Amino acid sequence: MMRFSFSAALAALLLTLAATASAADEDGYDLWLRYRPLEQAAQARVQSQARSVVLPGAPSPTSQAALDELHKALTGMLGRAPAPSARISDGALLLATPARLQELGAAASPLRAELSALGNDGYLLRQTRIQNHNVTLIAANTDIGLLYGAYAWLRDANTGAKLEASSAPTLQLRLLNHWDNLDRTVERGYAGQSIWDWWALPDIKDQRYTDYARANASLGINGTVLNNVNSKPEVLTAPFIAKAAAVADVLRPYGIKVYLSARFSTPLELKETSTADPLSPEVRAWWQRKADEIYKSIPDFGGFLVKANSEGQPGPQDYHRTHADGANMLAAALAPHKGIVMWRAFVYAPKGTHLNDDRAKQAYDEFKPLDGQFAANVLVQVKNGAIDFQPREPFHPLFGAMQKTPLMMEFQITKEYLGFSTDMAYLGTLFEETLETDTKTAPQGRTVAQTLSGIAGVANIGSDRNWAGSHFDQANWYAYGRMAWNPQAKARDVAVEWAALTFGPRTVTPVVDMMMMSRETVVNYMTPLGLHHIMGTGHHHGPAPWVDNLERPDWNPVYYHRASRDGIGFDRTAKGSNALEQYAPEIARQFSDPKTTPPQFLLWFHHLPWNYAMPSGRTLWAELLAHYDQGLADAKSLRARWVALKPLIDPRRYSEEEQRLNRQVANATLWRDACVAYFQSVSGLPLPAGVQPPAHPLDYYKSLSYPYAPGRG
Amino acid sequence: MMRFSFSAALAALLLTLAATASAADEDGYDLWLRYRPLEQAAQARVQSQARSVVLPGAPSPTSQAALDELHKALTGMLGRAPAPSARISDGALLLATPARLQELGAAASPLRAELSALGNDGYLLRQTRIQNHNVTLIAANTDIGLLYGAYAWLRDANTGAKLEASSAPTLQLRLLNHWDNLDRTVERGYAGQSIWDWWALPDIKDQRYTDYARANASLGINGTVLNNVNSKPEVLTAPFIAKAAAVADVLRPYGIKVYLSARFSTPLELKETSTADPLSPEVRAWWQRKADEIYKSIPDFGGFLVKANSEGQPGPQDYHRTHADGANMLAAALAPHKGIVMWRAFVYAPKGTHLNDDRAKQAYDEFKPLDGQFAANVLVQVKNGAIDFQPREPFHPLFGAMQKTPLMMEFQITKEYLGFSTDMAYLGTLFEETLETDTKTAPQGRTVAQTLSGIAGVANIGSDRNWAGSHFDQANWYAYGRMAWNPQAKARDVAVEWAALTFGPRTVTPVVDMMMMSRETVVNYMTPLGLHHIMGTGHHHGPAPWVDNLERPDWNPVYYHRASRDGIGFDRTAKGSNALEQYAPEIARQFSDPKTTPPQFLLWFHHLPWNYAMPSGRTLWAELLAHYDQGLADAKSLRARWVALKPLIDPRRYSEEEQRLNRQVANATLWRDACVAYFQSVSGLPLPAGVQPPAHPLDYYKSLSYPYAPGRG
Repeated sequence: MMRFSFSAALAALLLTLAATASAADEDGYDLWLRYRPLEQAAQARVQSQARSVVLPGAPSPTSQAALDELHKALTGMLGRAPAPSARISDGALLLATPARLQELGAAASPLRAELSALGNDGYLLRQTRIQNHNVTLIAANTDIGLLYGAYAWLRDANTGAKLEASSAPTLQLRLLNHWDNLDRTVERGYAGQSIWDWWALPDIKDQRYTDYARANASLGINGTVLNNVNSKPEVLTAPFIAKAAAVADVLRPYGIKVYLSARFSTPLELKETSTADPLSPEVRAWWQRKADEIYKSIPDFGGFLVKANSEGQPGPQDYHRTHADGANMLAAALAPHKGIVMWRAFVYAPKGTHLNDDRAKQAYDEFKPLDGQFAANVLVQVKNGAIDFQPREPFHPLFGAMQKTPLMMEFQITKEYLGFSTDMAYLGTLFEETLETDTKTAPQGRTVAQTLSGIAGVANIGSDRNWAGSHFDQANWYAYGRMAWNPQAKARDVAVEWAALTFGPRTVTPVVDMMMMSRETVVNYMTPLGLHHIMGTGHHHGPAPWVDNLERPDWNPVYYHRASRDGIGFDRTAKGSNALEQYAPEIARQFSDPKTTPPQFLLWFHHLPWNYAMPSGRTLWAELLAHYDQGLADAKSLRARWVALKPLIDPRRYSEEEQRLNRQVANATLWRDACVAYFQSVSGLPLPAGVQPPAHPLDYYKSLSYPYAPGRG
Repeated sequence: MMRFSFSAALAALLLTLAATASAADEDGYDLWLRYRPLEQAAQARVQSQARSVVLPGAPSPTSQAALDELHKALTGMLGRAPAPSARISDGALLLATPARLQELGAAASPLRAELSALGNDGYLLRQTRIQNHNVTLIAANTDIGLLYGAYAWLRDANTGAKLEASSAPTLQLRLLNHWDNLDRTVERGYAGQSIWDWWALPDIKDQRYTDYARANASLGINGTVLNNVNSKPEVLTAPFIAKAAAVADVLRPYGIKVYLSARFSTPLELKETSTADPLSPEVRAWWQRKADEIYKSIPDFGGFLVKANSEGQPGPQDYHRTHADGANMLAAALAPHKGIVMWRAFVYAPKGTHLNDDRAKQAYDEFKPLDGQFAANVLVQVKNGAIDFQPREPFHPLFGAMQKTPLMMEFQITKEYLGFSTDMAYLGTLFEETLETDTKTAPQGRTVAQTLSGIAGVANIGSDRNWAGSHFDQANWYAYGRMAWNPQAKARDVAVEWAALTFGPRTVTPVVDMMMMSRETVVNYMTPLGLHHIMGTGHHHGPAPWVDNLERPDWNPVYYHRASRDGIGFDRTAKGSNALEQYAPEIARQFSDPKTTPPQFLLWFHHLPWNYAMPSGRTLWAELLAHYDQGLADAKSLRARWVALKPLIDPRRYSEEEQRLNRQVANATLWRDACVAYFQSVSGLPLPAGVQPPAHPLDYYKSLSYPYAPGRG
C-alpha cells in the first residue's frame, strides 16, 4: 500500500514534469540545438540508429565533445540516455577515424578512398556492417571531422532528412568577426552586450563560451575574431592576451581558433616603439616579439584581422607605405607560427585627403594594383558589395579581379542596415544571391563563391538570452554558417533545416515562406530599385534620404540617390563615375544600358528621369512608389502569416516575434511614408491615383531623431 | 502488450525528465523564487495548507498575480498544480480582503481589528476555520497586501519557517534606484546591461520586466526609478514617456510605481524654455505641463528623483536659488497628481567653486539650514554615509539632524567600492549596522531607521542571466528589500531565509556563516580601521592609495588617508575639520577621543601616529598590517568554505561562484600587498616579524591600470 501510493505520487509528479517540459515556453537560448522529444515514429527511427554510442579508443577533448553532444541530444530526443559502450553491437552509432576503422577490420578500400577525399574537416555518414553488426557509421579523418559528422547526424535525426552520404567544406577559413569592444559594447550589435566578458576573464569563464562553441561547431565555423576591427592597442597587452587565451582554451576542443583584430599603431600607442612604420626594423621586431608572446599562450592562435587606413584607423599609408607593406610586415611576424593576416579592403579616402569621385570605386582602385604583392599568408577580406552591407548591393568588383591574392568574403550577419534585430530579414537569400553570381572572370566565368579562399561573417551574437536579438535572427547566424561550409547551398534548403530545428517539423512550410520573402520586403520598404545608403546618420536606423550636410559628401544620402527634379540614381556608367569598368567587360557592357541592367540594380548604376519607362509599363516614379507600397504590404503580410502560426508556436516565442513584427510594420510604414514624402518633394510629381499620401508632412519625418539607438559601439 | 511497452517507455521518459529536472544545473535566473520540489515531509505540510487555492470574487490584475504565483510555486514545489476553486473546503488556501471575509461570515472582530492595524500593504497569515472548514487564510486590506501575503506564505512554505502572524512595513516608500542610462549602459553596474531595453520599448516588453516585478513584489519593493540620477533631458520627451509607460503597465499589477530621474535643466536643454531658473514662471509652467503629460500616460507615476548641483549636474544653484527652491518647484508640478520629489543630498562643491575643508561636511552644511523649507511632497534622499558608499562609513550626520524634513535612506546595493560582482560581500550587515545605529537625537535617541520616511537602494540588477552578476549578489538585492520592509530585521535572519530559498535547507548554516563574515573581509583587505576612498580612480577597482594628482583635491586618495611619516588618518575632531560637530553632542563627544572611538572608525575621525597604542596592545602600524592580513586570510577562508560545500550545490552554481572566489583571493592579495607596500613607503617602518612582504615592489602596483573596467556608465 505504501509502495503503491508512493508510485502514484511519483507518477503524478513525473507526468507534471513531462508536461511542463514539453509544453514549456522556450526562450531561444538552445538555438537550433534544442533536442526536444521527437514524435513517436521519428523516435523509433533514431533509436534504431543509436541504441548505443561507440567511440573506439580514448577520446580526445574533441571527440569527447562529440560524445557529450550525442549524449545530451539523444537524452533530449528519446527521453533516455544512450548506452555508452566500448563494443560494437547492432544499432550502434559508431564514430571512427581511419586508424580505428582499420583496427576494427572495417577500413575497406572504397570507404578509405571516399574518406581520403574529405580532407581534414569532412565526414561521412553511412549505414553499414562492421564486425557482423549493423551500425551507423560517422567517419572522418580527424576528430574535428567526427564532431562535424556528429552534428550532421543529429541534424538529420532531428529533421528526418535522409543521411547525407558525405560532406566536406570547400573553404578552409570559416570565420565569425565580432565587432565587440573591450568594454563589452558591440559596434552594430543589436543583441545586448558582447558575450566576451573581458573584465571577468580569464578567471571566470562563462558557460556561454562553451555553448557558443557548440553552436558554431555544429555549423562548421572554425575561427572567430574576438574583437572589433576598430581595435584598441590594449588587446595586445599581456592581460588581454591571457583573457583571449582563456577563451581559446574553451573553444579549442570545438575546432575553433581564436583571432584578434590588431590596431596597426599598437606598438607606437603603447609607447614601446617610436613609430608604427611597417618598414622600421624596430617595429618589425616588436611585432615579431608580440607574435611570439601570443603563441606562447595560444599555440594555435589564428592570426590578425586588420582594418587600416579606413574611417580614421591608422595604417601603413600614414608612413607612405602600401597596404601590402603593412600586411606583409604582420604576416612575417605570424608566419613562423603558421598564423595569417586578414587585411580588409573596406577603405575609403581618409579625412582631409582627396575624395574619389565615387566611394564605390575606392577599394578596387587601392587594392587591384597590389595584386601579387601580398605575402603567402595574407588574405584580403572584401565586403560583399562596394558600399557597405546594404539591403542589396551588386557583388564587389574585387571578386574575380584579384587573381593572385587569396580573398575572403565579408558578410554582415548583424543587420546594421536592415532593421537591427527588430525587423525580420532572412539573409540566406542575400548570401546566396552574392555567392552564386557569375563574375564573368577568367578562366571561364567563376561565381563569387568560386573566387574565395575563406569567408567571414560579422556576428549578430550578443548577451541577449536568445543570442541574436530575435528568434529569426538566429537563422542568419545559422545560414551564414551553413553557407560558409557549403557556398553552393540554397537559401531555401537552409531555411527548411533551420525552421524544422527551431520551431519543429509542422511549421516548416509557412515559416520558410516568411523567411524567403522577408529580405525583399525590407529592400522594398527601404531601398528599392538599387537605391542605397539613405538611412539615418550614424546609427543607420530609419529613413533619412534628405541628409545633405555631413562632413564628407560620401556620408550623405543625397550623394547616393542624387535625386533632383530631373531624375534619380547614381550614374556609374562611362558617362558617370564609370565604376562599371571595375567589373568584367561582359558585366560592364550589360549594366551600362539601363534596359539590360537588372531592375534591382537600376538606380545603383543609372541616373534616370522620373518618367523613364520601366518594363512594367509604369514610369520610374510610379514604379518606385509601387515598390514602397509592396514593402509595406509585405511587412503586414509577414505579421499576418505569423499570427496564423500562433497555434503551432510556444506562447513565449510566438509573443516575442509578434511584438517585433508589429514594430516592423511601424518601421515599414515610417520608411514608406518618409521616402514617398521626400522623393515627391524632389520630383515635384503628383502621387498616381490610388497611392496613399504619407501620414505626415515631410518635416515631421525630418524631425525624428534617435539619440540612444543601439549599436554605435 | 502494446499498452505495457508504451507505459514502460513513458515511465522511462518521465524518470529521465524528473532526474533532469531535479539534478539540473541552475543558472540563477529564478532568484529566490525557485520553487523546486520540496522534500517529502515539507511537501505533506505544504499540501495540507493548500489543497486548493480560493480567491472569492473576480480577481484584479494584482490578485491574479498572486494566484499565478501560487499556481506556479505549488506546481513546482509539490509537482502538481493546486486545484483552483471558488468554494472553500478543508485545506484551502484562502486569499481575502475584509469585504470578502465579511461575505464569508468570517469578519469576526479580532481579525478585523488586527487587519485594520496593517495599513495598505500589510497582511496576516492565519490557520483558522471559515464556513466550518479548516483553512489557511491570507488576509489583507488591499489586493497588494494579498500579493505580499502570498509571497510571505510561499517563503514560509519553502523554508519551513512557521507562519508569521502578521506583518506591515514601517516605510511607505521602498524604492530601487536604477543608475541605468538610456543607451543601456549602467553606471556602477556589474551585471551586464540595463534590463530596460529603451530601444525596443514600448513595442517590445521583455519577459524580464514581469519577472523583475515578481521578484521585487516578493520583497515588498513598491517603486523603481528607471534611469540614472545623472539623467538626460530626452527621458522626459514623448517617446521616452511612452516607453516608461509601457514598463509601468507591466509593473502596476505588482504594486510597483515607476519614477524617473529628472535633469534639472531639461526644458532649457530641449530648447523649450530660455532658462531653467526654478523661479521663472516659464520654467514652472513647463514642468507643470510636463507633469500633466506624464500623468496622462502613467496615471500612478511616482515622481522625480533629482541629483542637482553635484558632480557637474545642473541645479537651482546655477541661478543662485537653493535646493529647496528647486525641489519645491518640481514638487508643485507633481502635487496635483500626488507625485513626490526625492531630492538627493549627495552634493559636493561644483568645479571651480570654493572647496569645503572636508567633503564629508558638505551635505550637512548645505541641507541642514534648509530644514523646514521643503514642500510637503519633497523628501531629501541621503546616502548612508557622508562620503560615498564605502565598505564602511559612520552614518550620515543628516539622519536625525533634519527634524522637519522627511528623509530617505540611499543604500548602494551594487558594489561600486566592494569588489564589483566578483568579490563576495553580503551587505545585510552593512545595512543593519547603519539602520540600527542610535543617532542620539531628539526626542530621546532614535536609530537611523527611526529617522526615515522612505528608503532607496541603488540596484545591482542587470541583463546577466543571474540578474546581479553573481549568485551571492542576489542576496544583497534580497536583503535590501527585506530590510526596506522591516528596517529592524537582522542581517543574519535575512541571510538564513535567502540561503534556504536559494541553495536549499541543507546549506543554510555554512552559507550564512560565509555571508556574515564576507563584508568584514572586504573591509579588512581594502579599508580597515576607518580608511576610506583609496580605490582606483574613476572605476573604483583595486587599490590606489598613492593617487595625488587629480583635478580636485577631494578626488585623491591621499586627501582621505593623509598618511605621512608622522601618522595616518583624517582628523575630523575640533582640531581638524570638525565634521564631528555635525553629529549629536553625545556622539561628537565620544568620537572626539580616539580611545572612545570605535576602532572601525578610528582613522575616519583621527590622525594618529604610527606607533599609537591600539587596545590590542599593537601599534597602529602593526594593527593596520594585521587587518590587511586578516582580510586576505578570510578571503581564502571564504573560498575554502565554498569548496567544502561542493557536494551540496549544483555544479553550475558551484563552479560560477568558485571562479569568483578565486578572483576574490587574487583581489584581496592585490589589495593587501599594494596597501602594505604603499603605507610602508610612507611610514618608513619595517614590517613586524612574521608579516609577509608584498610580492612586488610598489611601482608594480602603481603601474596596473584597468582601462575597460565595467560600470563607468
